[in-house]
Amino acid sequence: MPAISLKGRQMPPSPIRKLVPFAEAAKKRGTKVIHLNIGQPDIHTPEVALDAIRNLDRKVIEYSHSAGYESYRRGLADYYAEHAIEVTHEQIIVTNGGSEALLFGMLACFEPGDELIIPEPFYANYNSFALAAGVKVVPLRTKIEDGFSLPPVAEFEALITTRTKGILICNPGNPTGRIYTKGELERLRDIVRDHDLFLFADEVYREFCYDGEEHISAMTLKGIEQNVILVDSVSKRYSMCGARVGAFVTRNTDLYEAVLKLAQARLSPPTFGQLASEAALATPQRYFDDVIAEYVQRRDILVDGLNAIPGVRCPKPNGAFYCVAELPIDDSDTFCQWLLESFEHEGHTVMMAPATGFYAEPVTGKQQVRLAYVLEQDLLTKAVECLRKALTSYPGVIAPTEASSSNKA
Amino acid sequence: MPAISLKGRQMPPSPIRKLVPFAEAAKKRGTKVIHLNIGQPDIHTPEVALDAIRNLDRKVIEYSHSAGYESYRRGLADYYAEHAIEVTHEQIIVTNGGSEALLFGMLACFEPGDELIIPEPFYANYNSFALAAGVKVVPLRTKIEDGFSLPPVAEFEALITTRTKGILICNPGNPTGRIYTKGELERLRDIVRDHDLFLFADEVYREFCYDGEEHISAMTLKGIEQNVILVDSVSKRYSMCGARVGAFVTRNTDLYEAVLKLAQARLSPPTFGQLASEAALATPQRYFDDVIAEYVQRRDILVDGLNAIPGVRCPKPNGAFYCVAELPIDDSDTFCQWLLESFEHEGHTVMMAPATGFYAEPVTGKQQVRLAYVLEQDLLTKAVECLRKALTSYPGVIAPTEASSSNKA
Repeated sequence: MPAISLKGRQMPPSPIRKLVPFAEAAKKRGTKVIHLNIGQPDIHTPEVALDAIRNLDRKVIEYSHSAGYESYRRGLADYYAEHAIEVTHEQIIVTNGGSEALLFGMLACFEPGDELIIPEPFYANYNSFALAAGVKVVPLRTKIEDGFSLPPVAEFEALITTRTKGILICNPGNPTGRIYTKGELERLRDIVRDHDLFLFADEVYREFCYDGEEHISAMTLKGIEQNVILVDSVSKRYSMCGARVGAFVTRNTDLYEAVLKLAQARLSPPTFGQLASEAALATPQRYFDDVIAEYVQRRDILVDGLNAIPGVRCPKPNGAFYCVAELPIDDSDTFCQWLLESFEHEGHTVMMAPATGFYAEPVTGKQQVRLAYVLEQDLLTKAVECLRKALTSYPGVIAPTEASSSNKA
Repeated sequence: MPAISLKGRQMPPSPIRKLVPFAEAAKKRGTKVIHLNIGQPDIHTPEVALDAIRNLDRKVIEYSHSAGYESYRRGLADYYAEHAIEVTHEQIIVTNGGSEALLFGMLACFEPGDELIIPEPFYANYNSFALAAGVKVVPLRTKIEDGFSLPPVAEFEALITTRTKGILICNPGNPTGRIYTKGELERLRDIVRDHDLFLFADEVYREFCYDGEEHISAMTLKGIEQNVILVDSVSKRYSMCGARVGAFVTRNTDLYEAVLKLAQARLSPPTFGQLASEAALATPQRYFDDVIAEYVQRRDILVDGLNAIPGVRCPKPNGAFYCVAELPIDDSDTFCQWLLESFEHEGHTVMMAPATGFYAEPVTGKQQVRLAYVLEQDLLTKAVECLRKALTSYPGVIAPTEASSSNKA
C-alpha cells in the first residue's frame, strides 16, 4: 500500500468540525445540540437570489468563463465601488468560495518555505491552505485583554525575516469579531510598503459591522495597490454559504494572470451559484439593516450573558458574528467534548469550537472557545444557561486568572 | 511590487482557452466560429436535474457536509454498483468538479518532486494540478498510428525511478477517445502492484462508449484496491459542466482521511450543484441511449470527414467525444490561430485546440489538433468543409508524412 504524503498526514482536522461525531451521538441520545461551533447562519437567503434559481430557464448547465460570468464581475465591480473599492471586472476572478481564492493566492504568491505572518487567533483553515501551498505560517499573537487589536509595528518587524513574503488579515475578524481601525490599517500599510509584502485581506464579513463602526477595506490603502489581495465571498453576506461563490481581487496584473491560469485549470466557478450571486447584488438595503439589527441583539444576548458568568471574559466584538471567550477551564478541547458527551441541561447542550484550533500553538487557546452567534435569540439565551450550568459541574473548572478578574472589575 | 511565485509564472495557459481572444475578434468581424476546441456539449441537461433546481424549497442555502450530502453519496454508491464498482458512501468525497479531486489527490499522495507517469497526449490541465502540487509529470508517449493504445510494460518500467509514486490514466481518453482494453488494464494493474504506485483513474467519460465497446473501471482491478483513486464528475455525464460537482473515490482509508481534511478546509462542495446531481441519478436510460446515438453520428461525420481530406489522419475513437487528428501543417498553434485570424469559408471558421498543449514536449503535437464533436451534425459538416478548404489555402501546408500516407492507403 503506497504511503500518503507528508502534507496529507500533517493537514489539520477542522477545529470547527472535528467534534461532529460527538454531536451526532448526543443527538442520537435525544439531546438538542445548540450549534455555536460553525458560522452557518440561520438568516434567510435573499428572495431575489432564490428566485433566480427557481426561475432558471437554461437547457444546458454550461461552464462559465474561468474568471466567472462577465456580467457578474461587472456587477461585483459596481458593488465594490459602493464600498469605496475601485476595481474593474478585469481585476476580479470569481472563485469556489473564499477558500479557493486563498489557496490560489498562496500558490501564486509564495514559494514553498516562504513565510506568511498572520495575527492570531486566526481562522483555522488558513493553516490548511498554507500547508497545501508549502507556506510557513508565522503567528503574531494578539491578546484578549486588548480586544485582539493589532500589535505595534515593532512586533511585526521582530517577525520579519528574509523569507517573509506576506501578511494575512481577516477584517472584520473571524474568530475575534475585531474591526481594525484606520490607525491599525495605516500601520499595517507602512509595514507592507516598507518590506514589499503581499497583503491578503479576507473581508468576507464586510457587511457585519455594529455600533456605528465603519469597515475600511485594505483595497483603499494608498501606496500598496500592487500588494493587496482582497479575498471575498457571498457566503455570509447573503447567508448563502452553500453557493460556493467567492472572489479573488487584485490590481496586480502579474498576479491576476497567474491566478487566472489556475482558474482555467479548474475550468469555471459554479454556474448556479453565480446566477444566485449575480441576482443577490440587487438585495435591498433593508435586508442588511434587518440582519444587522438581529445580529446586534444576538451578540448582546450571548456576550453579555457570557460576561455575567463568574470567571468568563469575552470582549464585545463590533464585527462579524463570532466572539472568543476565555473560560475558567483546564482545556477547551476536553470541555467542548465533555459538553457533548456528558452534559445536558433541560435536554440541551452547546457545541463550540475550541480555540486551540485558532492558534499556531494550540496550548495558547486552551482556555478559550470561539462562539458563533448565528442562531435565534431564544436558543442563544438557552446556550448561555447551559454554559453557566456546565461551568458549575465540569470537572476541569479552574479558578479564573488574575487578568480575567481585573477585566471583569 | 512583490514578485509572484515560480509556480505562478510556470503555470501553463489553457491550450483549450488560449485562443479565445482571436475567436472573439473573429466574431466581432461577423465570422461564425464553430467551437471544436472545448468539451462543452450542447446536449440538454436532464429535465429531472433542472426540475430539482427550479423546485428549490430551501430558505437558507447552507453548507453541506464537507464530503458532500450523505444522501447524494449513498445515491452515487448505488450508481457505481450498477457500473460494477463496489464502494460505500464513506469512500466518496464530493468535490468541486473532477478538477478538485485531481488537485486534492495529488496533494495527499505526492511529495514535491515525486514523479507521476501519464500516457500522452493527455488532458492539459493535469500539468497545472501537478505543478500546483509540485509533482513532476513524466510523459509516456502513445502513438497516433497505434490508435493511442497503452505502450508495453517495458516502456513504463523504463520510466520508473525511485521518485515514481503514481500513474494517471484517463479512460475513456481525453483527448484521444481511447477506451483501454482488459489486457491493457491488466498490464497496468501489474505495474501498479509490482511498484506499489498510486493509480489515478479519470473516468469522467464512463458513459461515452461506442460500437459495443465496454468500459472497465480501474476500481474493478483486483489486488490494487488500496492504490486506485477514481476521479469522477457529473459534467459530461449529464451535460452539466457548470454544476461543478465531481467525486474523489478511494478505498484507502489513510488517503480518504487526508483528502477529507482538505475538503473540510474548503468547507463544502456546491449545494445547488449537489441537488441537481442527486436528482440526475434518476435520469432515464433512454436519455443516455439517445445521447450515445447522437455522438456516434457526430463522430462519424467528423472523423470520416477528416480522413477524407488529403493528408489528414484521425484514428476513429470509440469513447468520449474527442479525437486527435494529424494534419499536413507546419505548426498547429499557428494554424489554429490563422483559422481564427485570416480564414473564413462561407462566413464560418473553426476553432480547435492545438495538440501542443496535450504533450509534455509541445513540439510533439505540432502537427496534431484535438477536436471535440460536441456540436450538432450540420455544424460538424460545415466544420469539415472549412478544414478541407483551409488546408488548401493555409500558407504552412506541408506534404503528408510517409506514415500518414501509408495509414490512409
